[in-house]
Amino acid sequence: MTKTEIAIKMVLDRWHGSVTNLNRILSDLTDAQLQMEIVPGKNNGTYLLGHLIAVHDDMLILLGMGEKLYPALFEPFIKQPFNAAAQLPSVAELKAMWIHQHKVMQQKFSSVTADEWFGRHTAVSEDEFLKEPHRNKLNIIITRTSHLQYHSGQIVLLKTNKNEQ
Amino acid sequence: MTKTEIAIKMVLDRWHGSVTNLNRILSDLTDAQLQMEIVPGKNNGTYLLGHLIAVHDDMLILLGMGEKLYPALFEPFIKQPFNAAAQLPSVAELKAMWIHQHKVMQQKFSSVTADEWFGRHTAVSEDEFLKEPHRNKLNIIITRTSHLQYHSGQIVLLKTNKNEQ
Repeated sequence: MTKTEIAIKMVLDRWHGSVTNLNRILSDLTDAQLQMEIVPGKNNGTYLLGHLIAVHDDMLILLGMGEKLYPALFEPFIKQPFNAAAQLPSVAELKAMWIHQHKVMQQKFSSVTADEWFGRHTAVSEDEFLKEPHRNKLNIIITRTSHLQYHSGQIVLLKTNKNEQ
Repeated sequence: MTKTEIAIKMVLDRWHGSVTNLNRILSDLTDAQLQMEIVPGKNNGTYLLGHLIAVHDDMLILLGMGEKLYPALFEPFIKQPFNAAAQLPSVAELKAMWIHQHKVMQQKFSSVTADEWFGRHTAVSEDEFLKEPHRNKLNIIITRTSHLQYHSGQIVLLKTNKNEQ
């Protein structure tokens, strides 16, 4: 393996490991727990899960991998902040979207070449990319893995409430 | 820049960006807020800050960059779980350690060559490394950035309690 191939493997391993980690957290939570606010008056687990799906859907656009799977999630889960009174998809629907989305992403990621990972993502122009070659597709995976970990650290806190169910 | 150099830049940028993000969160919190539990009965902000310093100290060992700066933090912040009754360093002491540690780390990181980043870390044997070349120093930065983001997503929740101070 070349250093470039090793770097790509490390970044994708961390992405997949972070998805797997959230899967494990979700499997430990009841639907009722996931609907609770992480701390009073703040995002609940359902909102954070929908937010992650909406952000990962946007990755498909940034990576030039086709259309979003769930474009209707942009408005309630990115544009709008959490609102306890909002009509949102059910926990079961969101969990099914999450699972399907990451199967699709894993499949798409597996066929990307090293040169493609280091090619520009769709939100950067050709001119900008000449000066800033780090604004590539692999960097989208790096930054979204951070974002996923940040919110996973919040969702896991709902486990504390297990005894209250 | 070669692809290898771009990969290293992306990983280090995400590390430094994550440290900066936690600095910003900490600067928004009073010492009293940081001493509160994130959710009742779980880790408080002070414990998480000490835990991050202790984990980052261990990175110096894994990266072969000399001795830990604060070895005394291993016992209370890694080996022991959070205990509200434990005698721990003050918030001011921990914040000073955090700032100093990341200045030291930034300086050390800036002189590492590309070949060194892709060299084995100290917890993997030469034989293992031949088969698993991704167990290198750069991967330590990738995994600890995930860990830092996970706990930063928890510490930021203390901001909610601002009005209660």
